Amino acid sequence: MTTPVIILNGASSSGKSGIVRCLQSVLPDPWLTFGCDSFVDALPARMRAADGGIVFDADGGVSVGEDFRALEAAWAEGIVAMARAGARIVVDDVFLGGAASQQRWRKALGDLPALWVGVHCDPTVAAGREIARGDRTLGMAAQQARMVHEGVAYDLEIDTTHTESLECARVIAARVSRIGGPGRVASAG
Amino acid sequence: MTTPVIILNGASSSGKSGIVRCLQSVLPDPWLTFGCDSFVDALPARMRAADGGIVFDADGGVSVGEDFRALEAAWAEGIVAMARAGARIVVDDVFLGGAASQQRWRKALGDLPALWVGVHCDPTVAAGREIARGDRTLGMAAQQARMVHEGVAYDLEIDTTHTESLECARVIAARVSRIGGPGRVASAG
Amino acid sequence: MTTPVIILNGASSSGKSGIVRCLQSVLPDPWLTFGCDSFVDALPARMRAADGGIVFDADGGVSVGEDFRALEAAWAEGIVAMARAGARIVVDDVFLGGAASQQRWRKALGDLPALWVGVHCDPTVAAGREIARGDRTLGMAAQQARMVHEGVAYDLEIDTTHTESLECARVIAARVSRIGGPGRVASAG
Amino acid sequence: MTTPVIILNGASSSGKSGIVRCLQSVLPDPWLTFGCDSFVDALPARMRAADGGIVFDADGGVSVGEDFRALEAAWAEGIVAMARAGARIVVDDVFLGGAASQQRWRKALGDLPALWVGVHCDPTVAAGREIARGDRTLGMAAQQARMVHEGVAYDLEIDTTHTESLECARVIAARVSRIGGPGRVASAG
Repeated sequence: MTTPVIILNGASSSGKSGIVRCLQSVLPDPWLTFGCDSFVDALPARMRAADGGIVFDADGGVSVGEDFRALEAAWAEGIVAMARAGARIVVDDVFLGGAASQQRWRKALGDLPALWVGVHCDPTVAAGREIARGDRTLGMAAQQARMVHEGVAYDLEIDTTHTESLECARVIAARVSRIGGPGRVASAG
Repeated sequence: MTTPVIILNGASSSGKSGIVRCLQSVLPDPWLTFGCDSFVDALPARMRAADGGIVFDADGGVSVGEDFRALEAAWAEGIVAMARAGARIVVDDVFLGGAASQQRWRKALGDLPALWVGVHCDPTVAAGREIARGDRTLGMAAQQARMVHEGVAYDLEIDTTHTESLECARVIAARVSRIGGPGRVASAG
Repeated sequence: MTTPVIILNGASSSGKSGIVRCLQSVLPDPWLTFGCDSFVDALPARMRAADGGIVFDADGGVSVGEDFRALEAAWAEGIVAMARAGARIVVDDVFLGGAASQQRWRKALGDLPALWVGVHCDPTVAAGREIARGDRTLGMAAQQARMVHEGVAYDLEIDTTHTESLECARVIAARVSRIGGPGRVASAG
Repeated sequence: MTTPVIILNGASSSGKSGIVRCLQSVLPDPWLTFGCDSFVDALPARMRAADGGIVFDADGGVSVGEDFRALEAAWAEGIVAMARAGARIVVDDVFLGGAASQQRWRKALGDLPALWVGVHCDPTVAAGREIARGDRTLGMAAQQARMVHEGVAYDLEIDTTHTESLECARVIAARVSRIGGPGRVASAG
């Protein structure tokens, strides 16, 4: 049995998107990918900069309102429903609430197994990559580096500071088929 | 009672995306939007140009394979699940299979009501807008203009040839609150 | 003799970019296109939101600083140099300074002839298209609608309110070969 | 005296764009950036896939025609004219013709000094980054890795295989102020 859902959590500019594209390349079956970026794209424009929506502060902070949380919860249920309907799914998320964010996904998942992957990157290196990308508010990488992992339990943790996206993807792909077996219990600590 | 799902169907370059953004602006509640473009973005890169995936021919034709159809069905079930979980959803689709495409959505919807909107545009005008956009394979607008509407039943049909996106959105928004009432039966032709 | 440079001036969301892509399609020779958007893309990220650079206010206003003006002047000289070196060029600009902006281009052009095209659009319609595009600060279209044309002299003026981009492009293309002849003097009033 | 032009040459996915954005961040003065990507964006859509234009083969090969070369030469003259008019310029290019490409830039530059920077990356690593980016034809990185550097003389060569973009940018920035002095003669090989 293989896991139908892989959930990657890491700070902005930690390298998740590149890993996801490599995962879709190395995994033999087709996997769909969704994440906080595609969720924000699905919102009305006014919610990307307003009360009740998501706010990107000038210093890199991000805050979200109630309407955002309610829509996000419904969205997560739908993503899980896709997996229940037979699609394999990679989620690329930023757990701004740390353990509470993971708990929201666990609630949506119910008894559906998932491979939880923590994506780390040295904050100084991530801040440099944020400059190199040129499309992110500077400061997000540093602000989020620790908080997104607080209290979160993983099956697997990777670090992109000195490892390429494709290599990280191969490490994750090697674990996909073993989910549900004894390996998971041992590493979930 | 208001409908939780609006489904727009129309050929490439008929103006659906602009209408969706205007709908998200004029509707007082926040609506999420998904569609064939965001679905294709979620696919592995290799499925955008390979057997079993989606193929954009040089002359504007589009064909899809079995893997694509299976993932698309699971995706549609997930979109409907978001609506069942409380999110309002606007779907922006191209019914390449005409009535069969609508039937796939009906199956995913089950007893959940939807507002079906047909988006038309004079094929010559749509072909001109395809050139003006600059990011689409030329010929798609003309090829799809009729086929996507074959055998499809609508609650409402709009024509963007001489009507701006915002005005179209207002016409659709005015119908949102009446779905489920007698107006729908009368117009479902 | 044909003019080597076409300069389109109009407010944000008046439809210039679509016209430019159609012009590149209908003109038999290859024309390069540059404009205020590609110039801003060439700037350091910090100048898009800082003193000395360009500032997009929340209400749609745009202001620029000295460094911006100096780089913009050097950029315009370079664009004209491309035309002197044999490339045909379409410029897509927003004359935030009205007649003063045109004067800056005239200075860069020297004795090189240009076809000056004013692109108009009803401000209410442009504001609706701004919403439909979804990627612009709301309010820019309305703020700029009149000011960009103040004191500017044109060879040709077009209105996109009820005319498609491709049709506008055909009208402009028909004028390209007559530049420098008597037709220009008559219409430049 | 500082050099007014920095020219980076390297294969697709070797990391030039990220270095350019970091350069624009670390250099105290504002520098404009242009390159083969922005040049291709300025072309008519039909030249991106036609005779006389640029062709991206399915296997990652790239070939260009006469019209393309003529426009590219005029474009390069214009970029140099911007520098002569006082703008500092970073060029991000792929020398598909190796030494011949450099010769074309030397001709456009005339007596204007430039800092020539070779950007290298292990082909296997670059191929992995090509997958991670997801927006490039697979195979370009490997095909171009060696050919773009054949016979090209540099003031400075950097390798992105194990070095972050920001660090590469700092190494280049440290050389900017010394151009024209004795350091250049020594390293220009």
